[in-house]
Amino acid sequence: MIKAGVIGATGYAGAELVRLLLAHPQAELAAISSVSFTGQALSEVYPAYLSRCDMTCTDQEEVIEKSDVIFAALPHGLSQELAQQCHDKGRAFIDLGADFRLEDEAEYTEWYGGGFLSKELHSEAAYGLPELFRENIKGKRLIANPGCYTTAVPLALAPAVKNGLVELSGIIADCKSGVTGAGRKPAQNTHYPELNEGFSAYKVANHRHTPEMEQTLSHVAGEKIHLTFVPHLLPINRGILATCYASLKPGVTQEQLREAYEEAYANEPFLRLLPKGMSADIKNVRYSNFCDVSLFTDPRCGQLVAISAIDNMVKGAAGQAVQNMNLIFGLEETAGLLMMPPAF
Amino acid sequence: MIKAGVIGATGYAGAELVRLLLAHPQAELAAISSVSFTGQALSEVYPAYLSRCDMTCTDQEEVIEKSDVIFAALPHGLSQELAQQCHDKGRAFIDLGADFRLEDEAEYTEWYGGGFLSKELHSEAAYGLPELFRENIKGKRLIANPGCYTTAVPLALAPAVKNGLVELSGIIADCKSGVTGAGRKPAQNTHYPELNEGFSAYKVANHRHTPEMEQTLSHVAGEKIHLTFVPHLLPINRGILATCYASLKPGVTQEQLREAYEEAYANEPFLRLLPKGMSADIKNVRYSNFCDVSLFTDPRCGQLVAISAIDNMVKGAAGQAVQNMNLIFGLEETAGLLMMPPAF
Amino acid sequence: MIKAGVIGATGYAGAELVRLLLAHPQAELAAISSVSFTGQALSEVYPAYLSRCDMTCTDQEEVIEKSDVIFAALPHGLSQELAQQCHDKGRAFIDLGADFRLEDEAEYTEWYGGGFLSKELHSEAAYGLPELFRENIKGKRLIANPGCYTTAVPLALAPAVKNGLVELSGIIADCKSGVTGAGRKPAQNTHYPELNEGFSAYKVANHRHTPEMEQTLSHVAGEKIHLTFVPHLLPINRGILATCYASLKPGVTQEQLREAYEEAYANEPFLRLLPKGMSADIKNVRYSNFCDVSLFTDPRCGQLVAISAIDNMVKGAAGQAVQNMNLIFGLEETAGLLMMPPAF
Amino acid sequence: MIKAGVIGATGYAGAELVRLLLAHPQAELAAISSVSFTGQALSEVYPAYLSRCDMTCTDQEEVIEKSDVIFAALPHGLSQELAQQCHDKGRAFIDLGADFRLEDEAEYTEWYGGGFLSKELHSEAAYGLPELFRENIKGKRLIANPGCYTTAVPLALAPAVKNGLVELSGIIADCKSGVTGAGRKPAQNTHYPELNEGFSAYKVANHRHTPEMEQTLSHVAGEKIHLTFVPHLLPINRGILATCYASLKPGVTQEQLREAYEEAYANEPFLRLLPKGMSADIKNVRYSNFCDVSLFTDPRCGQLVAISAIDNMVKGAAGQAVQNMNLIFGLEETAGLLMMPPAF
Repeated sequence: MIKAGVIGATGYAGAELVRLLLAHPQAELAAISSVSFTGQALSEVYPAYLSRCDMTCTDQEEVIEKSDVIFAALPHGLSQELAQQCHDKGRAFIDLGADFRLEDEAEYTEWYGGGFLSKELHSEAAYGLPELFRENIKGKRLIANPGCYTTAVPLALAPAVKNGLVELSGIIADCKSGVTGAGRKPAQNTHYPELNEGFSAYKVANHRHTPEMEQTLSHVAGEKIHLTFVPHLLPINRGILATCYASLKPGVTQEQLREAYEEAYANEPFLRLLPKGMSADIKNVRYSNFCDVSLFTDPRCGQLVAISAIDNMVKGAAGQAVQNMNLIFGLEETAGLLMMPPAF
Repeated sequence: MIKAGVIGATGYAGAELVRLLLAHPQAELAAISSVSFTGQALSEVYPAYLSRCDMTCTDQEEVIEKSDVIFAALPHGLSQELAQQCHDKGRAFIDLGADFRLEDEAEYTEWYGGGFLSKELHSEAAYGLPELFRENIKGKRLIANPGCYTTAVPLALAPAVKNGLVELSGIIADCKSGVTGAGRKPAQNTHYPELNEGFSAYKVANHRHTPEMEQTLSHVAGEKIHLTFVPHLLPINRGILATCYASLKPGVTQEQLREAYEEAYANEPFLRLLPKGMSADIKNVRYSNFCDVSLFTDPRCGQLVAISAIDNMVKGAAGQAVQNMNLIFGLEETAGLLMMPPAF
Repeated sequence: MIKAGVIGATGYAGAELVRLLLAHPQAELAAISSVSFTGQALSEVYPAYLSRCDMTCTDQEEVIEKSDVIFAALPHGLSQELAQQCHDKGRAFIDLGADFRLEDEAEYTEWYGGGFLSKELHSEAAYGLPELFRENIKGKRLIANPGCYTTAVPLALAPAVKNGLVELSGIIADCKSGVTGAGRKPAQNTHYPELNEGFSAYKVANHRHTPEMEQTLSHVAGEKIHLTFVPHLLPINRGILATCYASLKPGVTQEQLREAYEEAYANEPFLRLLPKGMSADIKNVRYSNFCDVSLFTDPRCGQLVAISAIDNMVKGAAGQAVQNMNLIFGLEETAGLLMMPPAF
Repeated sequence: MIKAGVIGATGYAGAELVRLLLAHPQAELAAISSVSFTGQALSEVYPAYLSRCDMTCTDQEEVIEKSDVIFAALPHGLSQELAQQCHDKGRAFIDLGADFRLEDEAEYTEWYGGGFLSKELHSEAAYGLPELFRENIKGKRLIANPGCYTTAVPLALAPAVKNGLVELSGIIADCKSGVTGAGRKPAQNTHYPELNEGFSAYKVANHRHTPEMEQTLSHVAGEKIHLTFVPHLLPINRGILATCYASLKPGVTQEQLREAYEEAYANEPFLRLLPKGMSADIKNVRYSNFCDVSLFTDPRCGQLVAISAIDNMVKGAAGQAVQNMNLIFGLEETAGLLMMPPAF
């Protein structure tokens, strides 16, 4: 059994990780930590976990000590030092934060502030989006687990971009996220009466996930891509829907597109390319590690409309982190991740 | 007092019209009709209306007989004959359906089936979007009241299009609508457990409102425009958010854009151009006739992101219909429409 | 025009008061204050109010200075001093907080802590539940506006209690409230993802509204009543449903009950006794000053089940406060309060 | 592996059963049937199941043929004949409908209409509420799986009733259910805009589950009990909260109550008696087989307030059915049911 530890276990992504790890057939939860709730049981913070996870939150050192693999679910800027510690102690480290996601330090500084503590460490990190970079993940010990939007958008567009079926400029990602994406800390805009029955965009063309999705798609395309990313906040708990637009290259047909996507995703256990005409729906991927993709074109305007849906907390965070753990430890990639999305 | 009648009063748009007309200082509700509930009080269908509107649903003939102005809130295809009857009897007619919205019969046939019963009658209809076509509405007796999406999208884009600040090809309207837009009739996709906590697009690049918004923007631009329109269904009751994308012409700045919008909307009583950085939110326009517009640009990609929010049942249907009534009867345009959106 | 001022205008009850007062035909909004947002426009706090109420929040002194009647929507404990100031300056004062609701100081101390600053002032206060104590309100200058639960529960039970149709012991009030009842301040339990799709009771048999509803029903009964009150938090914005249980006196029939309620409420403009078999629904009273009451019996067990529904922010707070203003200033009791609940 | 078949697989309870059975370590899904969707894949009805359950719906005969145990999730009245068929073919039969729940035929006829097809068959049925009747379930071949309300209410009250700590008359069960309890078929009252932001009671003191919960508690008490049951419809998908009231016998303390509940439930794997002061919340049991129970008293009025929360689709339907399967086949009672409720 792999001993897994979670740092930041009382945040939403951390708590979801604990839930997934407890159901994993080849991992056991070794220790958890939380800055705000040290000494308290996780089930005191989340009474849903009563009798299933009454483990007490300890400190980061103990988690590192007791674990073969450490998952960190922390605000950005707090993982680099931890990663170094894990590296020095020979532990695998999977970072659910942003610290290792951007390859270009200047870009990191521009969007997040701060810099890279150790360029060497960064060079050892693999970007953990298995459907696009699987071979690069295997055998690594330091994983930058992608953000939620940055999983959904590239998976919607990658086959079209890779096969040169769309123009690389003018791409638009109009995304809608459930509220858990905003984290556990109460705020005015996530106060129930203010969000409920409302809907709006935020950080329009200005969200930190922008350079990350550009980096991924640029790797796929083999050249630098910029895109316009507009996130919106949905009054639901979980899930992301990414509605992505790109200009079709002249003459490209639905059939060509579908072929490219089928080829790319045919053997992907977590990718479901939906039948023609069916639209991806957040409802159908909740509580699962699936990414559903649906393909449409607007022949009147020459547009591809590629829509993806994921559970932001699973495929967009904790589930993908477990998928990465499976890859780096040589387990079956789907181990512990075959839970079926409930119908309602 | 203007005697107003509502045909199709038990549908959502009809019921909302009744509510607005009952609060109108210069109109009185003369009669209402409903095919499904003839002989029943409106308050039997909507118990919210108990003691406020216990008027009994009668038939269309009686409504036409008793009214100076007839509002028809019917599925498409049912208004043309009614409009003719009203015309022949000298009644004003405001159609909340689609029958008179498209000017081009071939386009109507393509998207809706059927044709124009009377070309002459169609030529007398004015398209009732006052902020763009006010002068053409005044004095008319037959109004094609715009659909909900087709109010929100043109109002978000018109000043940019009119002033030549954006390219006219490649425009995208990514829209999100509350469920009342789907009407009162229960269906599987609007059954509570299937919609709640879900989110998806529908009729992708294939929705009947597409030619209507193209027609409006083409008038504004002075040349034919095609755009890609993708509607989504939000798990909320009311409201539309339209996130619209258009390529900025080279050199166009936020300031130029803002100036154009300010000039266009400065004196519009129902248009609120939001301060820089504030994002339009459905929550802030609910139960009001406001259309909020917020302007953003993505200078990295040369994109305008113009976002509008309306209450689909008010500015997107019943409220706009009353606004049109006010215009054709020479009343204060805001009469009966100054209700303030509740804060929550 | 009556000059009305609102202290605590940026809280939920205060903001709702502002909205109602701005639509009142015989009142004008003179000034508003807020401790947290002094110097800011109300529309900065609630963008829904943009262009409708851009009035700047000032301090309490200015509100008192400029107003004929002062509404205070503050946490308990802050109104007594204000009331004294208003009294000394000859202003009418309507307190939406709890400071003047309980007649018995010992009971106040037990449930709220603190005591009465001035017994004399307390003796001048009228409890503002017009349907039960109308005559006592007229001509008063200091009104204790009831809480939301304490409006819903007594209105559900009063006619049965008054006419001796039920036992006075063993009464149960199982209440469910929308989230606005918890106020505007974000907290963990009202953070969207934690409340959404959940439901629970809180302060079981221990809520501060208990003695207040007991006091009201005791006045109605003419003897001291104790009851069990269990509030629950609903994942909706507005509204309270009170499901009240009392043992029927032997031989009492549905017909007798209905007669008693009809007699009590026949001429009440805001009370709708629903037809037999129709169940009160929060949906039907939202955004209105109505209180809907439905009557059921369980003849198998000899129980009355009386259910009332109100909008906690209107009849349960701001609307009732305006109703009280109307009464003390000798206006039509329904002035400014005839808004119709929307059907959806 | 036990071969399990589901009749009525496209209803909500049936679909949930399929999901649970597919994750069961000792059962395999042998066949499913549906009257409305024969010949279609279950994943066409529920796209959430794509690639996880693409099994085609067949007819009831094939299900019976292929299965060791047949689960029937059908409207009442349709199971008796099926049960007979299964009995004749030596198959185990677990009925999620109401046909075998009531022991008294006259009572069944009164509440449901119709009668018992075979008194002998009824006498072989065991009522499948393991926490109260476990020993009677083991070894049986015909199980009447309890309804959702009838699981929640007895589990909240049984220890108090059994130990004579409360009066047996005047018991009240004020229950609130998520919308899945109303089934998959769209209806006006479950149409999204009509239910959302509303809340009401239905079938007040008149719901068919009443005699079933009375029967269970009468068995527990050893004498006939009547109670008042009022269900309400919550605008959430899943879950039931049962707030139950009973008069405490003189002198009974919280401590005595807690002791009785601890003794009763200490070894129950799916019952969580919550710590003092913590209130049961639907949120904490969703997607799990847990029943959370919280105990309060109102010493001022001598009332017990016992609150239970279950997922109506799991412990209130499909999960309990699997628990019963485990019992009758001699498996570990918790097999396939240890899924942890998500924290959000």
